[in-house]
Amino acid sequence: MKKIRAAVVGYGNIGKHVLEALEAAPDFEVAGIVRRQAGGEQPAELAAYPVVSDIRQLEGVDVAILATPTRKVEEYAKDILALGIHTVDSFDIHTQIPALHRTLGEVARQHGTVAVISAGWDPGSDSVVRALLQAIAPKGITHTNFGPGMSMGHTVAVKAVPGVKAALSMTIPTGEGIHRRMVYIEVEAGHKFEDVAAAIKADPYFVNDETHVIQVPSVDELLDMGHGVNLTRKGVSGKTQNQLFDFNMRINNPALTGQVLVCMARAAMKQQPGCYTMIEIPVIDMLYGDREELIAHLV
Amino acid sequence: MKKIRAAVVGYGNIGKHVLEALEAAPDFEVAGIVRRQAGGEQPAELAAYPVVSDIRQLEGVDVAILATPTRKVEEYAKDILALGIHTVDSFDIHTQIPALHRTLGEVARQHGTVAVISAGWDPGSDSVVRALLQAIAPKGITHTNFGPGMSMGHTVAVKAVPGVKAALSMTIPTGEGIHRRMVYIEVEAGHKFEDVAAAIKADPYFVNDETHVIQVPSVDELLDMGHGVNLTRKGVSGKTQNQLFDFNMRINNPALTGQVLVCMARAAMKQQPGCYTMIEIPVIDMLYGDREELIAHLV
Repeated sequence: MKKIRAAVVGYGNIGKHVLEALEAAPDFEVAGIVRRQAGGEQPAELAAYPVVSDIRQLEGVDVAILATPTRKVEEYAKDILALGIHTVDSFDIHTQIPALHRTLGEVARQHGTVAVISAGWDPGSDSVVRALLQAIAPKGITHTNFGPGMSMGHTVAVKAVPGVKAALSMTIPTGEGIHRRMVYIEVEAGHKFEDVAAAIKADPYFVNDETHVIQVPSVDELLDMGHGVNLTRKGVSGKTQNQLFDFNMRINNPALTGQVLVCMARAAMKQQPGCYTMIEIPVIDMLYGDREELIAHLV
Repeated sequence: MKKIRAAVVGYGNIGKHVLEALEAAPDFEVAGIVRRQAGGEQPAELAAYPVVSDIRQLEGVDVAILATPTRKVEEYAKDILALGIHTVDSFDIHTQIPALHRTLGEVARQHGTVAVISAGWDPGSDSVVRALLQAIAPKGITHTNFGPGMSMGHTVAVKAVPGVKAALSMTIPTGEGIHRRMVYIEVEAGHKFEDVAAAIKADPYFVNDETHVIQVPSVDELLDMGHGVNLTRKGVSGKTQNQLFDFNMRINNPALTGQVLVCMARAAMKQQPGCYTMIEIPVIDMLYGDREELIAHLV
């Protein structure tokens, strides 16, 4: 069996978990790691792989898994798709997904490649569940409740507030898609906690949510990559009311994202040129194994 | 907008709910109902539609939704696919799905049509969730726990036991995919309850499960079409253990099946000729609406 050769672009927390998922997958081989710090000493787990600063330095790459910051996705994807290499990313700014879909779709079709975007858990696997539940109960309301877990975006927003030395913003679900923000901070010398807390609560990221700011001696001691989702729908199938659904996860966040990215790298190999979100790809294409056996086992 | 013209083949409990789902869908029109008793008086809700005994008597049918007994599916589907009409069914004998997939696939490709098989909730929407969870946590165990709800297959098996006048077999989940059977029966005159109960417990449908048989004065008073599922997976994403997932439904059984069949009739219009289970079709194809808006709203 010819294995799928994948490059990991970016080697932060997500990149590390992508590598683990690639190593655990029987149908992949690691073509190499692309990272800015390609020159210096590398983590022990990368010893077996080429580490380069440009994907052009790697050989025979079928698919590039972008584990870069979300705002870098478009730039990297355009460049790599034009090289004839498929891309997969976990772009997570929900409102900008349709625009990215159009842009990368054009580039991909032009170069005969496939871009899978927003392949994480939300957007990502949650999107598949949301779409499925809307289909099978077309009238009704879906709520996605996140957490308890660390919000990367909110944590970055807190860190940008003057006087914040270290921060963690936890998302706590209170039901019906409403969330409480629990913000843990270390305060820089020369700043008053009360002033910093007021500035955080006034930030656009927090002003509409119930927000609690708590001063702690060490944010690092609170860090945990666990996260969760409770996705509910109550709706109507045909003309029958009160159809009830819910989906729950308690997961290691970067590990799940890394695994989903690898699943969609596999799926990318099976699609026609163009750009896809996860709801546009058959679920079976995410799976390793004989198609008929998967149908026998899973349907 | 040209509407999709659908025929409902079979008009039992599922057929009624398929019709309701078609009437509620903005993109469908009902071409007619195909049923054996096409000649006599028809239920009031069918007054607006042609009721015929053969689908050849209906005009311009795009897709036939088979609401027939599961053992009649293959025969009807082969005949209808050969007429250039897509078919959708909820064939539910899990072990025979791969064989049906091959058979109908050949017929469909030969006639440029699409067959979607096993489109209900299990097999069906549960299959999509099972496949998704296996993809995002490839190592681990999935359990599908059914009920509480009426098992059609088990109820039919009880009714075949001598001395049973009326029966209802309820499936009760006890965890890890293990089920208790609660069997309610009316006993025919001249039979002893103890003998009938022993015969039921010795039946292949029941011999391996914890089974309780209870005599009641009226089975009809116990009938309720509610059903449920609790589908769990504990597995490994990449190399990270203890990823926890569960999916739950509390639903009207025939209403959900009818709605899923209509979703897959819509999806059938968008596939290349061949046979498909639900895990082989992108979830977005189940949905009514503008593709870009669906992506913006659901991803």
